[in-house]
Amino acid sequence: MTLLSALAGDAEIAALLSDAAQLDAMLTIERALAAASADAGWISIDDATAIDSAIEGFEPDWVGLQAGMVQDGVVVPALVRQLKAKVPEAHRAALHKGATSQDVTDTALMLQLGKVFDLYEARLSGLITQLESLDAAYGDRSLMAHTRMQVALPTTWRAKLASWSEPLVRHLRAIVAMRRSLLVIQLGGPVGDRGSFGEFGDAIAGGLARRLDLGLATPWQATRDPIIALGGLLAQISGSLGKLGMDVTLQAQNEVAAIRLEGGGGSSAMAHKSNPVNAEVLVALARYNAGLSGVLAQALVHENERSGAAWTLEWLTLPPMLEASGASLRLAALLLEQIRVVDPD
Amino acid sequence: MTLLSALAGDAEIAALLSDAAQLDAMLTIERALAAASADAGWISIDDATAIDSAIEGFEPDWVGLQAGMVQDGVVVPALVRQLKAKVPEAHRAALHKGATSQDVTDTALMLQLGKVFDLYEARLSGLITQLESLDAAYGDRSLMAHTRMQVALPTTWRAKLASWSEPLVRHLRAIVAMRRSLLVIQLGGPVGDRGSFGEFGDAIAGGLARRLDLGLATPWQATRDPIIALGGLLAQISGSLGKLGMDVTLQAQNEVAAIRLEGGGGSSAMAHKSNPVNAEVLVALARYNAGLSGVLAQALVHENERSGAAWTLEWLTLPPMLEASGASLRLAALLLEQIRVVDPD
Amino acid sequence: MTLLSALAGDAEIAALLSDAAQLDAMLTIERALAAASADAGWISIDDATAIDSAIEGFEPDWVGLQAGMVQDGVVVPALVRQLKAKVPEAHRAALHKGATSQDVTDTALMLQLGKVFDLYEARLSGLITQLESLDAAYGDRSLMAHTRMQVALPTTWRAKLASWSEPLVRHLRAIVAMRRSLLVIQLGGPVGDRGSFGEFGDAIAGGLARRLDLGLATPWQATRDPIIALGGLLAQISGSLGKLGMDVTLQAQNEVAAIRLEGGGGSSAMAHKSNPVNAEVLVALARYNAGLSGVLAQALVHENERSGAAWTLEWLTLPPMLEASGASLRLAALLLEQIRVVDPD
Amino acid sequence: MTLLSALAGDAEIAALLSDAAQLDAMLTIERALAAASADAGWISIDDATAIDSAIEGFEPDWVGLQAGMVQDGVVVPALVRQLKAKVPEAHRAALHKGATSQDVTDTALMLQLGKVFDLYEARLSGLITQLESLDAAYGDRSLMAHTRMQVALPTTWRAKLASWSEPLVRHLRAIVAMRRSLLVIQLGGPVGDRGSFGEFGDAIAGGLARRLDLGLATPWQATRDPIIALGGLLAQISGSLGKLGMDVTLQAQNEVAAIRLEGGGGSSAMAHKSNPVNAEVLVALARYNAGLSGVLAQALVHENERSGAAWTLEWLTLPPMLEASGASLRLAALLLEQIRVVDPD
Repeated sequence: MTLLSALAGDAEIAALLSDAAQLDAMLTIERALAAASADAGWISIDDATAIDSAIEGFEPDWVGLQAGMVQDGVVVPALVRQLKAKVPEAHRAALHKGATSQDVTDTALMLQLGKVFDLYEARLSGLITQLESLDAAYGDRSLMAHTRMQVALPTTWRAKLASWSEPLVRHLRAIVAMRRSLLVIQLGGPVGDRGSFGEFGDAIAGGLARRLDLGLATPWQATRDPIIALGGLLAQISGSLGKLGMDVTLQAQNEVAAIRLEGGGGSSAMAHKSNPVNAEVLVALARYNAGLSGVLAQALVHENERSGAAWTLEWLTLPPMLEASGASLRLAALLLEQIRVVDPD
Repeated sequence: MTLLSALAGDAEIAALLSDAAQLDAMLTIERALAAASADAGWISIDDATAIDSAIEGFEPDWVGLQAGMVQDGVVVPALVRQLKAKVPEAHRAALHKGATSQDVTDTALMLQLGKVFDLYEARLSGLITQLESLDAAYGDRSLMAHTRMQVALPTTWRAKLASWSEPLVRHLRAIVAMRRSLLVIQLGGPVGDRGSFGEFGDAIAGGLARRLDLGLATPWQATRDPIIALGGLLAQISGSLGKLGMDVTLQAQNEVAAIRLEGGGGSSAMAHKSNPVNAEVLVALARYNAGLSGVLAQALVHENERSGAAWTLEWLTLPPMLEASGASLRLAALLLEQIRVVDPD
Repeated sequence: MTLLSALAGDAEIAALLSDAAQLDAMLTIERALAAASADAGWISIDDATAIDSAIEGFEPDWVGLQAGMVQDGVVVPALVRQLKAKVPEAHRAALHKGATSQDVTDTALMLQLGKVFDLYEARLSGLITQLESLDAAYGDRSLMAHTRMQVALPTTWRAKLASWSEPLVRHLRAIVAMRRSLLVIQLGGPVGDRGSFGEFGDAIAGGLARRLDLGLATPWQATRDPIIALGGLLAQISGSLGKLGMDVTLQAQNEVAAIRLEGGGGSSAMAHKSNPVNAEVLVALARYNAGLSGVLAQALVHENERSGAAWTLEWLTLPPMLEASGASLRLAALLLEQIRVVDPD
Repeated sequence: MTLLSALAGDAEIAALLSDAAQLDAMLTIERALAAASADAGWISIDDATAIDSAIEGFEPDWVGLQAGMVQDGVVVPALVRQLKAKVPEAHRAALHKGATSQDVTDTALMLQLGKVFDLYEARLSGLITQLESLDAAYGDRSLMAHTRMQVALPTTWRAKLASWSEPLVRHLRAIVAMRRSLLVIQLGGPVGDRGSFGEFGDAIAGGLARRLDLGLATPWQATRDPIIALGGLLAQISGSLGKLGMDVTLQAQNEVAAIRLEGGGGSSAMAHKSNPVNAEVLVALARYNAGLSGVLAQALVHENERSGAAWTLEWLTLPPMLEASGASLRLAALLLEQIRVVDPD
């Protein structure tokens, strides 16, 4: 972990998005695809059994995978070659039969996202609980409201805490909804019309979805709006927590002192300081993810049946966004722990 | 209308977002607020009647409104001053009583958005119908698929048309959902806790929502994630149509010639050309709105109970995005009219 | 002027970027092109004289221009048609001879930018002078520095004012440099290689540049990095002034009160408030232009010899950025007038 | 190296931006600062000698540095603590005396950027040479120009290659200029006015600059426009190469076939394909860096004398941009090697 990752990253999310995690997901998919293909009669039961055995205990040649990624722009062709070498000749053609790289890559992302969503949901729920506790402790206390960076009129901490909490409730609900709208299999074959699976395409797709516990959908390889919608949600999560962070930096100003932060950051030159580091990083992550959501959205202009350029752009932007939102959730929990409400006197 | 607006703008959407349309909405709100306040007992029936009469036939002093906008950063204080001058002294204090500028401005936006959504829904439905007609005419025909900018394998026009249509169905559904999640009143008073309405706040809010046919919500003046979600959807609409435009430019290349466009654009120097102007503008609008969605999302970092900076940033970005998405829908309809599928020979 | 333009726009810049201003520039260019073409021997002196007479007193049919813009994606073909109708038949072919729409459109932008730069330079110089006056008045006074949103150690107003002024000096220098690097003619003909001018291309280009007082350059119709560099500078100008605005909002907080603002904005609900409206708008414009600079930069991916999509994207983004930077400069001058330094006590 | 880094990253640039490289730069700076401070009489020669010895052979406790980063939001306080533990008590106070974390962090970035610029310059020069070779081989050949995605008129490969090369020449020149305008020391002390160095500040700054072979500048800790200008240049580099990549994908289309690519990427489903992977990744990197330049520019709104939020945002965006531009240069060289011009027949 780099120094910057320690400050502003998220090791748990990063692990879920690692090459190793992606490979695991891809192997799971190839097994499920073989099983679903056998169920549908597209390959034989023996084929599926042989494929399952070969994948069981498969150890990738990472150097080869990397070379394949560089050559093909996607890792699946090299992975399939490595896997085929483990499958007895007679069953080899059944592996990945009818499928294309993107089927595996996109569906793997969905499996990985499912786990990321688990974490997000737990963390959002945790934050909401922390805010409820703060409300129980401080909700009735008076707080000077500020509008347009000027003193306005007194309000209560209850109202402030609600303004931090309500968006999180909405984001939690949005994640739940996205499990249905986003977490679906991709199965289209080379040009995305399932034609490569003969008459078996829809049956295989159904089986694959069931086995992977993902939703069923028509192929979406060139229509990525649900991915871009996820980017928007990630920006909203970081943004709502960036608002929380901004409020904390403002309330914790020495001259305002409505909040005191336990365990603020130190300075190499000014021993008296207690810097609102976690709050500041929340603001930075909010601005980062806001901007990146606009970069990711450029990937909607996806040429024809598959765009290498638009797809690569997703890979460059979505994982850092997922990690940034995770980091926002992680840091917000730390920050809420640090908050001590100071009574006006 | 400027030359650029004629090409890449949308006069109907622009009209719905004009100063005049905003003012109409604001007057509607002040009347509804007075009526709801009278219903709740916050002001008298006579107050409400006097306010209604004053607003009926009110003609704004636009120069004064502009001066107020410059002075206050929001037009409502000047508007309220102008309105109060029309209300008999005895009832004057009842106008806008308990409310704040943002209540009126944000709720006015919601009324305006409702009308924009009407147009979007009609246009999305129209495009879906156009695509169904194209499918009826051409769906069975063969089309060479292209992946990663290379010839792949044959597919059908049905699959291509589906890739254009399916996102639009999702966007249409998203707009319907946003009518519930986004189109809600804002009523919070100066610091957003309804405290300025005494015990009557929630009752007035309920009446205001009913009278304006908007949803009811707790005050959201500093938690703008639903607005940012709208920005995301606008980028998705333009982006999905940008993908359509990109596909058309690629299929209409002279060397590919899977599509011929009736009535393409001319060149000042090359008489033989038929430029895919509408398709190109769709791509430009997609990239524009994609990027702007990331700018709008910066407005989530909303300081304390009201941020002039974040709010102004919304005003700078959301209306152009709304117009751009409208223009995308308008131009896509024109483009689909121009498409003639060419048989491969 | 809309209400929002009154607050956050710039009427002077808008006028320089209007359709009328663009048309004036285009007519100037067609005349200069004819004269330079005659000088070089590409058309006759009589041709040039006839063209000059036709353009003298030309009144455009704006409805026709608008229709042409919609049809061709660029206004020049329609304009040339209108102009040719005014030129006697014998000389008609000499008008715009060898040139393409982009030559005229891009070069017109350069003429318009020259005038925008005049305004920017004057305003930047004015701001620097205002800051010098503030330094003369307040420079020696003590000011509490704030780092990471916490009280740090005392510094002087001199240091604060220098942090506002030094970037402006750099931006002024950058504009001067851009007059050389950016303000050059575009002359390439239909495919950008001057082949359409036979052997006369370079001579005509030289003459055109001299007559328009622009720099000479090889055709750059598909290589737009100098335009994108301008976008970066515009973001820097707005951004540096956004930092100034942010500092003012922080220093003018009631609890900090290092600055008092004469004539702040009012609230419809809180009579005591003096909102730092100009400062807030500066922050909003900074975030807007920062983000738009990243959208404009998408236009670098310019397909082949001319991209309608990338070019239209420039038109959608650059003018609003130019106006936003102008507005930042305008508002900063107003804000500096409002600043009253308050002595700590 | 991750799979994605292998495809779209740059190991050499990544190494120059690693934690280890940053630490090396920071140690170099602390030694140079001690030496310059001794030269100026701010600390004693013995102090400087003791500090030099302590840093010589210093091995950081990375776990401690990471903890410090998390605590303080910047690694320098922890590093200084670790270093002080190695310095004899009598000389301890002389280490980092008068300096602040940002002095070290920002100046370290400048040292690192100097090395990144070396690589960029070499690679840009290399690309320009490759393009000259292509021009020597193919420059005279005819090529069909395409404007607005339509066949235009014949031009030459010379013109196409010039459109790829000329921006690179400008970028090379810009890097040379940025060595002067950007690569300067940061020395300001805690609040950026050098007050913490007593009367010795300017002398120490001069010595530090000389010893580090960096330019001299007044403190710029809160005025980051030169950093944002770098971001703009990085977007231009990636963008110009994205245009090259886009052109190659268009020319290498099977139906156009003006270019054949040696060693294109393979598909897991379509053995006949030769995908223009490097060209596509260039387009993706262009869009990524374009967008990120707009995110980085948000960091111009830097609160007061030091903004933790804006500074962290720079850290999140600038290094990935530096690596992306490096990757663009690396991939463009590979792509140019792959290009075989095909004669039209």
